[in-house]
Amino acid sequence: MNLPACPLPFNEYPRVVMAHGGGGRLMQQLLDRLVVPALCQHPPTHDAAVLPVQNRRSVVTTDSFVVRPLEFPGGDIGRLAACGTLNDLAMAGAKPTQLAVSLIIEEGLETETLWRLLGSLRQVADAAGVPVVTGDTKVVDRGHGDGLYITTTGIGWVADGVSIHPDQIRPGDAILVSGDLGRHGLAVLAARENLGFEPPIASDCASLVPLVADLLDAEIQPHCLRDPTRGGVAPAIAEIITAAGLGVEIEEGALPVDAAVATGCELLGLDPLFLPCEGRLLAVVAESDRQAALATLRSHPLGQNAVCIGKVTEPGPLLLRNRFGVERPLVLPAGELLPRIC
Amino acid sequence: MNLPACPLPFNEYPRVVMAHGGGGRLMQQLLDRLVVPALCQHPPTHDAAVLPVQNRRSVVTTDSFVVRPLEFPGGDIGRLAACGTLNDLAMAGAKPTQLAVSLIIEEGLETETLWRLLGSLRQVADAAGVPVVTGDTKVVDRGHGDGLYITTTGIGWVADGVSIHPDQIRPGDAILVSGDLGRHGLAVLAARENLGFEPPIASDCASLVPLVADLLDAEIQPHCLRDPTRGGVAPAIAEIITAAGLGVEIEEGALPVDAAVATGCELLGLDPLFLPCEGRLLAVVAESDRQAALATLRSHPLGQNAVCIGKVTEPGPLLLRNRFGVERPLVLPAGELLPRIC
Repeated sequence: MNLPACPLPFNEYPRVVMAHGGGGRLMQQLLDRLVVPALCQHPPTHDAAVLPVQNRRSVVTTDSFVVRPLEFPGGDIGRLAACGTLNDLAMAGAKPTQLAVSLIIEEGLETETLWRLLGSLRQVADAAGVPVVTGDTKVVDRGHGDGLYITTTGIGWVADGVSIHPDQIRPGDAILVSGDLGRHGLAVLAARENLGFEPPIASDCASLVPLVADLLDAEIQPHCLRDPTRGGVAPAIAEIITAAGLGVEIEEGALPVDAAVATGCELLGLDPLFLPCEGRLLAVVAESDRQAALATLRSHPLGQNAVCIGKVTEPGPLLLRNRFGVERPLVLPAGELLPRIC
Repeated sequence: MNLPACPLPFNEYPRVVMAHGGGGRLMQQLLDRLVVPALCQHPPTHDAAVLPVQNRRSVVTTDSFVVRPLEFPGGDIGRLAACGTLNDLAMAGAKPTQLAVSLIIEEGLETETLWRLLGSLRQVADAAGVPVVTGDTKVVDRGHGDGLYITTTGIGWVADGVSIHPDQIRPGDAILVSGDLGRHGLAVLAARENLGFEPPIASDCASLVPLVADLLDAEIQPHCLRDPTRGGVAPAIAEIITAAGLGVEIEEGALPVDAAVATGCELLGLDPLFLPCEGRLLAVVAESDRQAALATLRSHPLGQNAVCIGKVTEPGPLLLRNRFGVERPLVLPAGELLPRIC
């Protein structure tokens, strides 16, 4: 077999490290220089692939969920596995139609826990009206897994006329976020490390399918949608704006952060901009659609706290502006702040 | 949340054991009484789900690959992940069109190994003309994985007029197998346990896509196809014949087993009927198609050793007949003979 040379220098990175999975620069490097060149002819630009089928656009997305612990305030791996995949479809503007679920179970997992976690996945799928149509179950020996890993694949269709993609972003567009930031990352971290926040901070883990449906029903055409999961809002914005070849100004003062989350972040030295969400969306909309989009988002329980956090600029730097008007560049961390949060 | 009662009694099976993943009766029980009722409204009867889309039939299948070791004579986890999923589509009579690949990498995996394994996956996908269209990469901490787990999801389409399903099976149908049995299971076992067979037994791991295409091109309509992976030929036959509500007679003397595999099985007390294959297919065809189907299979390098191993009978027992004409019932093992072979 003639394998071409790997664009990632093996001597520089002889082994995979945790940071390769954390949503930062190292992860981007592993993907861009090893995984994607190895597997794909055409590098994907979405979390989901859009494929023309006859005269319709089919969308497929897949994600493995390895969150630790399996259960945390506000969610569990089952809920996350359903929401994460449904949300990837929703972010591509697709209506989800099917889920496939593949399980890697570690020997020793309580069957009752397995039942509960799968029930949690099913509940989200049922609420979205999406059946689980196929699956697989593997068992690995004790010490070679972590209770349960779930890989969910979602299939959906993009309605005619819908076109949601970074290349639709224009200078002057408004950047909206559907709710407060950082809950999921902090909730999982607190559960894993027994931080004992009182009351516990609950993950925002939720299906964004109804929120996107509301936007489209209101005839608002978002230019781009993204769920700020691994790495949080900052890398999500950086990714779509870089893909669009434009610049951005984010108002730090406008970022919605719950008081308990803000306190937790201060205590732990974390920045909510870099904490993952699992039930929030970023929407880039035309300035002329801003008010209508905010009103639509706010009319849904999941979008009550929707706000505008910044705007797209002509090609230029990615900037954060603080309350005092001081600007700093939005720099991505090399590795990860929080491993295994999804 | 109101979860219904689990049909699997938790007190009887408080924890998942390795045998729950091995392709035997315990695995069937876990699937039928926990996983499927938890996740699905309609239990699937194929390894792939067939879904009507407009006037075509879309097929989707997903599988997690956890083989240990990652590389073995004749294949590796990458090759297996591509072949396994392509084969599930082929067994449903579908032409594969897309693959999605999700990786769970254990911290510490050599990047060069990762490159090689993904290249191996890609080579099979390229040979089948199927692009990897989307994916995901997660990294888990050392000691919480086993180098690499790969989940592949495949999407394809069933051509008009093709109908391959256990409900097409009729009494009198011939049961064909495309080549010698047991290679994959024995190859992986020997590599894992350093059994030192000389020469090493190579896995049969291969894409069955061209073999099925040849059958369909020759206008042979197999009533049912199955790749005898986990558990081997015996459970694969039992599953489709039970689903068809019929009986079967298998001629043990007709089962093609390579001499080295037969010797290895004798040494280890294994039965090739229960050893997994990853590049063989079972085809149930009308008796009138038997000769043409065998000729078509034999004209392809992968099907050179194709033979007829038995026939479907009226509703009745599943029987094995040995060289002396003595019949015994085909009984499935409770657990697994070989864990983690795919």
